[in-house]
Amino acid sequence: MSLTRVHNLSISLDGFATGEPQSAEAPFGHAGERLHEWMFQTAFWDAGGTVGVDNAFAERHSVGFGAEIMGSNKFGPPGWQDDPDWKGWWGPNPPFHTPTFVLTHRPRPPMEMEGGTTFFFLDATPHEALATAREAASGLDVRLGGGPTVVRDFVAAGLVDHMHLVQVPILLGRGVRLWDGLEGIEDRYAVEAVSSPSGVTHLTFTRKG
Amino acid sequence: MSLTRVHNLSISLDGFATGEPQSAEAPFGHAGERLHEWMFQTAFWDAGGTVGVDNAFAERHSVGFGAEIMGSNKFGPPGWQDDPDWKGWWGPNPPFHTPTFVLTHRPRPPMEMEGGTTFFFLDATPHEALATAREAASGLDVRLGGGPTVVRDFVAAGLVDHMHLVQVPILLGRGVRLWDGLEGIEDRYAVEAVSSPSGVTHLTFTRKG
Repeated sequence: MSLTRVHNLSISLDGFATGEPQSAEAPFGHAGERLHEWMFQTAFWDAGGTVGVDNAFAERHSVGFGAEIMGSNKFGPPGWQDDPDWKGWWGPNPPFHTPTFVLTHRPRPPMEMEGGTTFFFLDATPHEALATAREAASGLDVRLGGGPTVVRDFVAAGLVDHMHLVQVPILLGRGVRLWDGLEGIEDRYAVEAVSSPSGVTHLTFTRKG
Repeated sequence: MSLTRVHNLSISLDGFATGEPQSAEAPFGHAGERLHEWMFQTAFWDAGGTVGVDNAFAERHSVGFGAEIMGSNKFGPPGWQDDPDWKGWWGPNPPFHTPTFVLTHRPRPPMEMEGGTTFFFLDATPHEALATAREAASGLDVRLGGGPTVVRDFVAAGLVDHMHLVQVPILLGRGVRLWDGLEGIEDRYAVEAVSSPSGVTHLTFTRKG
């Protein structure tokens, strides 16, 4: 069975998955890379890195996926739709290696990249986008790649099977909050928390049967 | 040296320390007692309870204090100031056993209770209230008993030395949020997280020297 999964979505103690303002120079606004430092220290990111609990979770990001869905704000800085040459942040060989569906109200033709990634641009509801991505995934899972607005929308629509969050012990105070509108999520998910020696806490949400 | 400490302040994943609306029948609003179930299972609360990490943290609530400061919303339901007979939620022998300072814009005369608790009512700033409580504490520590609004105000004013929070894996969605206005708290505190087999995560904030 093909699942819809979220991995390595980092949030601050106060629930922000990105700071503000977002720009080409500062993709995460005033948060900088502080939400992601835990990951840079793992073997998942750097072959010489740690292989503890942070890495065990991080590696799951790349196993078993046949497609990714991402929001417009993940693909580029505000205004990328006005730049016909914008091809994402990741250079010629993006780290997705599957069909990757970018949700935008201003779709453009598909872009085939190196390494198996092809970007498709969809103006679609969460249900429609997931149906399209699932078909492209050929029986493998669909990664919901963020950002927080898209994850929140898909969780609210009941479309997410597994969600892995990483809570970083900082207070951003402003940015885009993951949690708004998700009251009572614990009724639909088994929630587990495990803190890491690195200082972050991994939160997993497993949809109840 | 007399410290100002917060203990056992429970919050939801989305940072709410109480639900809404608060009333005599529902002191924590729609949250009910869901934020405190972890504590009811400990030996701190019930002699037959657990003695693991939850209890180790919980017991610190009662050791080394010479005074407590609490907010108006902890002392009674909305409107308690209009009831001259209101003496708090806790019956004739409240669990404070020290001078206990209630912050309110409508002070009344002190109330001496059984077991060493005397309630004093102060219309004061955080700095003024802490100076008064510290003097009453005779060299022991001052507990900042909550609720979230008072804790937030005292942290913002730089008056809190230690803070222990308990993050419960539920999403309340609404209520009183602890975190608003505390951006960058990690610059002033060493933050540690430890998850418990019970499902909660203990967060401690130790003021940097």
